[in-house]
Amino acid sequence: MTDAARISSPDFGAALTAGAVPVLPFGALEQHGPHLPLATDTIMADGLARRITEEIGGILLPPLPYGQTSDNAGFAGTMTLAFDTVRAIAKDIATALKQQGARGFVIVNGDFGNQAPLRQAAREISEHLDLPILVVNYPGMAEIAADLCTTEPAGLGLYHAEEFETSLVLHLQPQDVRMERAVAEYPDYPATFPAVLTGLEKLSRSGVFGDPRPATADLGRRLLDRLTTEAVALVNAFLATLPG
Amino acid sequence: MTDAARISSPDFGAALTAGAVPVLPFGALEQHGPHLPLATDTIMADGLARRITEEIGGILLPPLPYGQTSDNAGFAGTMTLAFDTVRAIAKDIATALKQQGARGFVIVNGDFGNQAPLRQAAREISEHLDLPILVVNYPGMAEIAADLCTTEPAGLGLYHAEEFETSLVLHLQPQDVRMERAVAEYPDYPATFPAVLTGLEKLSRSGVFGDPRPATADLGRRLLDRLTTEAVALVNAFLATLPG
Amino acid sequence: MTDAARISSPDFGAALTAGAVPVLPFGALEQHGPHLPLATDTIMADGLARRITEEIGGILLPPLPYGQTSDNAGFAGTMTLAFDTVRAIAKDIATALKQQGARGFVIVNGDFGNQAPLRQAAREISEHLDLPILVVNYPGMAEIAADLCTTEPAGLGLYHAEEFETSLVLHLQPQDVRMERAVAEYPDYPATFPAVLTGLEKLSRSGVFGDPRPATADLGRRLLDRLTTEAVALVNAFLATLPG
Amino acid sequence: MTDAARISSPDFGAALTAGAVPVLPFGALEQHGPHLPLATDTIMADGLARRITEEIGGILLPPLPYGQTSDNAGFAGTMTLAFDTVRAIAKDIATALKQQGARGFVIVNGDFGNQAPLRQAAREISEHLDLPILVVNYPGMAEIAADLCTTEPAGLGLYHAEEFETSLVLHLQPQDVRMERAVAEYPDYPATFPAVLTGLEKLSRSGVFGDPRPATADLGRRLLDRLTTEAVALVNAFLATLPG
Amino acid sequence: MTDAARISSPDFGAALTAGAVPVLPFGALEQHGPHLPLATDTIMADGLARRITEEIGGILLPPLPYGQTSDNAGFAGTMTLAFDTVRAIAKDIATALKQQGARGFVIVNGDFGNQAPLRQAAREISEHLDLPILVVNYPGMAEIAADLCTTEPAGLGLYHAEEFETSLVLHLQPQDVRMERAVAEYPDYPATFPAVLTGLEKLSRSGVFGDPRPATADLGRRLLDRLTTEAVALVNAFLATLPG
Amino acid sequence: MTDAARISSPDFGAALTAGAVPVLPFGALEQHGPHLPLATDTIMADGLARRITEEIGGILLPPLPYGQTSDNAGFAGTMTLAFDTVRAIAKDIATALKQQGARGFVIVNGDFGNQAPLRQAAREISEHLDLPILVVNYPGMAEIAADLCTTEPAGLGLYHAEEFETSLVLHLQPQDVRMERAVAEYPDYPATFPAVLTGLEKLSRSGVFGDPRPATADLGRRLLDRLTTEAVALVNAFLATLPG
Repeated sequence: MTDAARISSPDFGAALTAGAVPVLPFGALEQHGPHLPLATDTIMADGLARRITEEIGGILLPPLPYGQTSDNAGFAGTMTLAFDTVRAIAKDIATALKQQGARGFVIVNGDFGNQAPLRQAAREISEHLDLPILVVNYPGMAEIAADLCTTEPAGLGLYHAEEFETSLVLHLQPQDVRMERAVAEYPDYPATFPAVLTGLEKLSRSGVFGDPRPATADLGRRLLDRLTTEAVALVNAFLATLPG
Repeated sequence: MTDAARISSPDFGAALTAGAVPVLPFGALEQHGPHLPLATDTIMADGLARRITEEIGGILLPPLPYGQTSDNAGFAGTMTLAFDTVRAIAKDIATALKQQGARGFVIVNGDFGNQAPLRQAAREISEHLDLPILVVNYPGMAEIAADLCTTEPAGLGLYHAEEFETSLVLHLQPQDVRMERAVAEYPDYPATFPAVLTGLEKLSRSGVFGDPRPATADLGRRLLDRLTTEAVALVNAFLATLPG
Repeated sequence: MTDAARISSPDFGAALTAGAVPVLPFGALEQHGPHLPLATDTIMADGLARRITEEIGGILLPPLPYGQTSDNAGFAGTMTLAFDTVRAIAKDIATALKQQGARGFVIVNGDFGNQAPLRQAAREISEHLDLPILVVNYPGMAEIAADLCTTEPAGLGLYHAEEFETSLVLHLQPQDVRMERAVAEYPDYPATFPAVLTGLEKLSRSGVFGDPRPATADLGRRLLDRLTTEAVALVNAFLATLPG
Repeated sequence: MTDAARISSPDFGAALTAGAVPVLPFGALEQHGPHLPLATDTIMADGLARRITEEIGGILLPPLPYGQTSDNAGFAGTMTLAFDTVRAIAKDIATALKQQGARGFVIVNGDFGNQAPLRQAAREISEHLDLPILVVNYPGMAEIAADLCTTEPAGLGLYHAEEFETSLVLHLQPQDVRMERAVAEYPDYPATFPAVLTGLEKLSRSGVFGDPRPATADLGRRLLDRLTTEAVALVNAFLATLPG
Repeated sequence: MTDAARISSPDFGAALTAGAVPVLPFGALEQHGPHLPLATDTIMADGLARRITEEIGGILLPPLPYGQTSDNAGFAGTMTLAFDTVRAIAKDIATALKQQGARGFVIVNGDFGNQAPLRQAAREISEHLDLPILVVNYPGMAEIAADLCTTEPAGLGLYHAEEFETSLVLHLQPQDVRMERAVAEYPDYPATFPAVLTGLEKLSRSGVFGDPRPATADLGRRLLDRLTTEAVALVNAFLATLPG
Repeated sequence: MTDAARISSPDFGAALTAGAVPVLPFGALEQHGPHLPLATDTIMADGLARRITEEIGGILLPPLPYGQTSDNAGFAGTMTLAFDTVRAIAKDIATALKQQGARGFVIVNGDFGNQAPLRQAAREISEHLDLPILVVNYPGMAEIAADLCTTEPAGLGLYHAEEFETSLVLHLQPQDVRMERAVAEYPDYPATFPAVLTGLEKLSRSGVFGDPRPATADLGRRLLDRLTTEAVALVNAFLATLPG
């Protein structure tokens, strides 16, 4: 794996010339309950991107530690970027990669709120920049969680600071997890959710959606293995469509 | 020191309530010759911000690993953000901090190209957001380099991948420095530089401006000490102006 | 029901004062195979919005006959608006409604590509305009189709010019349907779809995704009844949260 | 005539290939006194565009039912779009038409406030898109009104909900006119009007500018005939300049 | 009269406090045939604004020497600003005036192409800035020309480098007029003009629209007197509406 | 020298065809203490640009009398343009010059606040417009002041309404200087200046930074000579890089 942050300019140029595809983890600084660090989404996106990059021989770009996360803005420590800022960051980096001769561009996204602006950026990159782009959003996550986790999900697609995420951080960065503070919380969603935008602080006092208590580092390792398998299959399908 | 990336939401809230001021390192992914890593500006900004935050009891925000660096766009590995993207990132984070009750905001900038957009963002934050903001750009750098470095600077304010920067990275992240590749290069500036924008690849084949060869980790430590002293004095003067 | 296009200014004012909530159908001009009219999404959104408005005693606003539909831009007759244009239209109308004293705002969206810009507009309307807003996207559609349709869906959430949509238009505007041209087409999705944006003309020669041939007006009526039931429940839940 | 909303994608493509030119009616949702419907401008623009399209064998695009109408924003039911939104809509549709191979583009505008943004859009379409465009704003309206109407106009170019407009709607959509409510009102313009922007609600309590009472459907038919004659002459002159 | 460019900050403040209203001439750098200077519109706007300011005891702001003039972009020396740039300039200056306590703001516009962006700026200034604003566009110009000029106008409202404008510049800045080069040119307008935007270089080889040859400085003085009379009446009506 | 404001369109075209390079003075309307006119920056930029243009046989464009000067917004008479407005003006004029065939473009800037937006505009002009551009910001000013002025500068690069600027205006436009009001003021800068943006009204009651009292027209002439020498050397170096 080539870690762009740690190599020199000529080494980056050589990797690109050899056809290596850049992989950008996009995270967030966002509340994840009382037991997980604010960087949780960044840690997970970086962890998955690292695994993908190893498998495909790509170039790992430094992870974006901020993202669009306004649904969590009611909790301390959440620093949300605007929709248009996330969109601009993705487009700027794609523009630079195109100028440098990249064959394609993969973004590994770890934050729900980034999905829409990255999708829009990908549309504009495809239409105006002629750079093939793939955005990876934890492929197969719901199925993987159902297969491997022991607790019920909070529903409506929300996996937040519960067994799945907590296990991943226990595997990737255990020193920043405070399991003694872990609490379970299952929100009672109003009938208008998620059709009406609702600050998540109105749905969960703790900021947790689900039950993190059974989480383990070993489960985290197995979850990451499965995520990696799914993601690498998708990325390889993408690579197979690239010219050159 | 409080490292926002590694703590939980309630801990961030407690630190902010106690009056701790957030400090954001703003870096870049930019060529730094054949011997320094692309993340050099981020490493240095983060290193200085970390020291400042320790001294003032602040909150360290995760460093931005991309910045405006179009002057280096002709070198492999440089990923420049647009002027308006850097400006938007700074304003978004300031907006979030204001909403969360921060008393003030400090940005520690490690990249020359970020200076103008951060200055403009600071103007708009001051005028529209009512959040006191200080942007720190390596205060006293030229004097400190003159005092402690052994080689001549490249002139016109350019300290790039030479003794100063190389020593800092040798101190902060030595495993990513390839000293055996270090070369000296002193550009012959055209008369129109810097009044006419010029791609730096036209001025230096290696991307180095100055002489990195005598750099040492020990010098890096002493340089960082001096930078920290200057910066902390400035930040403390800023803190003294804050309400509450 | 109050049809804003057909009543006078004082009558509109009286309805708003009485607490009636405006309902905006958002459609598109978009290919729907060889047998359905380009206005299909507008016809369906207007049809559903009309039913909702009758049930809740709301005000029906004139339907938007254009939307974001760039995935279909490779087919003749598709006229796509930009993401930001859809977002601006929704925000402008919300601004006008707020100024006129509306208690809330409901958008009934009939086009897949409008979902993201309307979601973003709703976020900004919530944050900056203090007007409660609900965006309705055919609630329960997949379940309703599974219950009532006789053919298999095309998969990946794509219901386009098939039994479901064709039946609805046969019910709402039969004179514009050319059933003798109806063909079935089940795409063979590439592994990268939908993670990589793909022009739909590359997936279906006819522009149909599924099988429209068994569609009937009677099925269309029953589908609309079910959609209406689901949508009215959601809208009533929304209305229950409004002040005044 | 080809009505784009009602035909299928292949039929639209065939019409465009045969050289038919698309015609877009641009209306507004705007107060027109106590007796005319809010959609009056849309009804008139659509009525005229329909006649033009028949005469030239063009393609009628679905009418925009909203426009820039902020001068009437003080009256209930007026839903104004921003200047830049009208401009963006026109440019987006022009962009789509250009991509699909249209030879030219005609907009039939029914709302005073749309004139400026459509003019600016036409400038940008001409300069950047290489698509010939004609904006038709009721050509010869003042002369036609002077010839055929029996009442005095309100002056300063304002024909609003009076004999001219009321007759047209009586001809085109009589079921939405409440003639028993029709009142005449002749404003006493301040000396600064129209040089200083003035909410029209300050000039006319009823929202009427002129006298609608003698309006008849028959007069409406004759007015539309005359408008059509003038407009078709202009459009034909435009078509004669198109390549191909 | 107070000429803002020539007085000091305290004197400007005193004038504003005394209630003097600022008057901004907005010109253009635009072709005016072979005999008039490129600054013609600026010279005329400044000349009229100067007279108005004297009459009302206002503050003359420095004239803008550039404007929106893209219809003339096909002629050498025309430097057009974008629509949005003219709009932004007017709004920025209005914002500054509002912050400094101005009671109102008068713009004297000398360029046809500025009319639309200044109108739009005035709308936004009225709505968002709470600063009364009047834009003066040569009031009564057609009547004054008909009364005092000896030659026929070129029609369609075009008075460009002909007797009217040439006389005004002969009065205001005679040293920059080359009467020996003056030629008459009466365009043969195509039927689509002005509904279709047309570069003026396609209508007049010389850039003149009308006949400048009989122009005299004495006529220019009388034209300016009449323009001043009309404009001052309008401005005084505006001033009568201001608070304070 | 060719003064664009005063010549006709054909004469401008001839000068450009002959290879003359356009020179744009960019000024500001900004407080300069009780003794200097608000147009001081414009007077100086125009004076220097005039001298440069004479020396190089260029084309003098009309000076922009407004600029970005928000640091002085707390003083009466300062009319600041936004950063983005200055940027847009420079880009619009560059676009027009490029279309007309200019070989290059020189801006002579007289206002500190314009430096950043003109720098950014120059970057965008270089990257997107393929027009070589040079921005001249009083080259060698600090050295020239040190050589020729008799009073101490106010420090931190601030030369505002003191001996240097006052002498230049005494030379260029003496009738607008009120020397009897001239006062000296040496601010006591806070430790956070200029890292924290500070309204200059908080640093100097008079708006003067330095001592204007010894200023003379003769010194102004010598200062302008020196500035001209430095600037012409720079411009000639720029011209030497131009094609054609």
